[in-house]
Amino acid sequence: MKDLKGTFLFAQSGGPTSVINASCCGALMEALKNPNVTQVLGAEYGVKGILEERFFDIRKEDSYELELLKYTPSSILGSCRYKLKDFSVDEEDYLKILNVFKKYDIRFFLYNGGNDSMDTCNKISKYFEYKGYNCNVIGVPKTIDNDLYGTDHCPGYGSASKFIATSLMEIYQDVHVYDQGRIVFVEIMGRNAGWLACSAMIPEIKGFGPDLLYLPEQPFDLDKFFSDVIDVSKKKNGKVIAVISEGVKDKGGNYISESLSNCKSDSFGHTQLGGICEVLASIASTKYNLKVRPIKLSLLQRCSAHIASLTDINEAYNAGKYACKYAIEGYTDKMVVFERDKNSKEYRINYVLSDLSLAANNEKTVPLEWIKDDNKGMKQEFFDYVLPLINGKSEYPTEDGLPRYARLKKVLYKL
Amino acid sequence: MKDLKGTFLFAQSGGPTSVINASCCGALMEALKNPNVTQVLGAEYGVKGILEERFFDIRKEDSYELELLKYTPSSILGSCRYKLKDFSVDEEDYLKILNVFKKYDIRFFLYNGGNDSMDTCNKISKYFEYKGYNCNVIGVPKTIDNDLYGTDHCPGYGSASKFIATSLMEIYQDVHVYDQGRIVFVEIMGRNAGWLACSAMIPEIKGFGPDLLYLPEQPFDLDKFFSDVIDVSKKKNGKVIAVISEGVKDKGGNYISESLSNCKSDSFGHTQLGGICEVLASIASTKYNLKVRPIKLSLLQRCSAHIASLTDINEAYNAGKYACKYAIEGYTDKMVVFERDKNSKEYRINYVLSDLSLAANNEKTVPLEWIKDDNKGMKQEFFDYVLPLINGKSEYPTEDGLPRYARLKKVLYKL
Repeated sequence: MKDLKGTFLFAQSGGPTSVINASCCGALMEALKNPNVTQVLGAEYGVKGILEERFFDIRKEDSYELELLKYTPSSILGSCRYKLKDFSVDEEDYLKILNVFKKYDIRFFLYNGGNDSMDTCNKISKYFEYKGYNCNVIGVPKTIDNDLYGTDHCPGYGSASKFIATSLMEIYQDVHVYDQGRIVFVEIMGRNAGWLACSAMIPEIKGFGPDLLYLPEQPFDLDKFFSDVIDVSKKKNGKVIAVISEGVKDKGGNYISESLSNCKSDSFGHTQLGGICEVLASIASTKYNLKVRPIKLSLLQRCSAHIASLTDINEAYNAGKYACKYAIEGYTDKMVVFERDKNSKEYRINYVLSDLSLAANNEKTVPLEWIKDDNKGMKQEFFDYVLPLINGKSEYPTEDGLPRYARLKKVLYKL
Repeated sequence: MKDLKGTFLFAQSGGPTSVINASCCGALMEALKNPNVTQVLGAEYGVKGILEERFFDIRKEDSYELELLKYTPSSILGSCRYKLKDFSVDEEDYLKILNVFKKYDIRFFLYNGGNDSMDTCNKISKYFEYKGYNCNVIGVPKTIDNDLYGTDHCPGYGSASKFIATSLMEIYQDVHVYDQGRIVFVEIMGRNAGWLACSAMIPEIKGFGPDLLYLPEQPFDLDKFFSDVIDVSKKKNGKVIAVISEGVKDKGGNYISESLSNCKSDSFGHTQLGGICEVLASIASTKYNLKVRPIKLSLLQRCSAHIASLTDINEAYNAGKYACKYAIEGYTDKMVVFERDKNSKEYRINYVLSDLSLAANNEKTVPLEWIKDDNKGMKQEFFDYVLPLINGKSEYPTEDGLPRYARLKKVLYKL
């Protein structure tokens, strides 16, 4: 617990989400009004902007535009995927960072990102401690993948889930419009965790659910997959919606998308052939004479802010706000996490602290006991978990029929 | 002009849109309250349902659920792609239809669809006239492609445009988040008309527009395409967003997607390899060493009702409502079309009638004089045309964080 006074710095890192800027908004708003904060800065392109001393002067921004960050997808300050080595191996970047922090008198530092970013944040925090530099470092979680350890869920996941669930509900309507059979395979993001793919099952509660679900948490078998598809097709008049996580692996733990696209590149000169559903659709055609439409929700999963969850926006905002409060109160080397209030009948979240090192070194996957047998989807436990997270509509302002995003001046701060 | 009294029949046909059910809603609401209408029926799966006498009794439906049709994507009654031969060639289907119409005393018939459906509608209408059967037949336009002749625009286009424009705006945010280069190719629907692909340019008015646009209205040259991409990449720090219509053709009028995927199937055993952007991304990788992410908005373009345009919903509703009014007033063999009021400063649409045969035999493409040179996008004329069509948010009700769709009982009508 160190009570400090000085410059506040916020930086964003990793892949964007629909609500990452809501955390930025919450943190900046809190910092701007706190008397212990002498200056409020935002780093351009994450840790890269720190190394290059590229800081935006947040006090120069319009408060209305800052408010609009709640509705503006993707990292407004710019992001990076920059991996810091351990400082015992290579101290160069750390020394640079330390000197920049000293030069700008940065005493409060918030880093907003996923697992890798929490690792970066943890390393910087540990280095400052080792060097005796007083700075309160707090991680702000963010990832559509929902794979961060130690938190009930991650900001960004609810909105991506809402987009995926709504899109699958819409796709269901489309697939069932004719009296002929139609088969679609939908590819969902999520790396090694099936959280996002599970969200595709949410429409089931309305009677519009996909038929089959394949998660990275369970081994994927190609023959079993096609036997499942053919089975559903027989039962449902040729209509099948199968959802496949991009991260499905075989029994040996190898990514199916990689092993299959290796097959392809052998006979096709190392071309990049798109995702797993394209490949599965191709096999369906050649081996099973099935016509399949592959659908990849792609980038839209992480940037479709127009259908962000209001709950997610508010929680992301609060994650940033509490991170700032905790830093100013004197906490360091922590990450803000969401604790679901188990004593409350209503859904309620408490914003508490967890050790950064826990998030940096662990990955949270879908509990196996929540998954139905035979790729038939999810059990009630999952729906109980996820439904509060997609609740509420984003009431974003519009202009000319389009969302009105924040327009920041991004005035570079010079000492 | 035939003043009739009897059963009112509504049917849906062709590919779905986000607002096709709004037209259904408008027509059914109007029919239900008209004293000349003795019974209100909806055919299952378009003309197929007529041939098989599968009719839903609309009077059995809840009015609240019927209202929800405004927000429910895809054809609620079921659709078909059933092509009627000319009755001079094969009269069988026509005789069957005529007998069914006589049996159920159907005197008002509305058919909701695109070019092919208007052709069907026109043929049935002509056949009834030839047989001296009194029935007022009116076409209700619908297509996201916006290629129907004789109307300022088509119901369905505005909502698809709004989804595409908003998604491209979000993709722009995502692509520009890192300081490294990123190239994406986005494939847009629209068959032989570039209207939908043009809509991808709308974010340009906010400064978030794609860099390059390829329409079916202009010949597509592969070398020119890659030279354009490389050119933009050099100027814009490696960041490129190129939008390609699925219907682009070479100088000889052959679809690029077909000619390219033929190349592919030769060396890969007639597999189905997805859309044009997958193929272009593959060429980018092998021939130009460029890493490209192909994005296909796929079915979402025609079913993402959660971001439907309020203007489009209202106009689609009115198209159905006026079609019903006109049929009851005694008009037949016509289609309801949108006429933009040129004397009004505010955007205003008049719902007038046009000959069905005009829509059945013509296709409307993007005016060449609206297109900028060198695939740089669209001129102001296009934005003036399209902006009113994407105006307003759909205020759809929700349940458990998901859109609440109409739940029809679909009680089969028996004489």
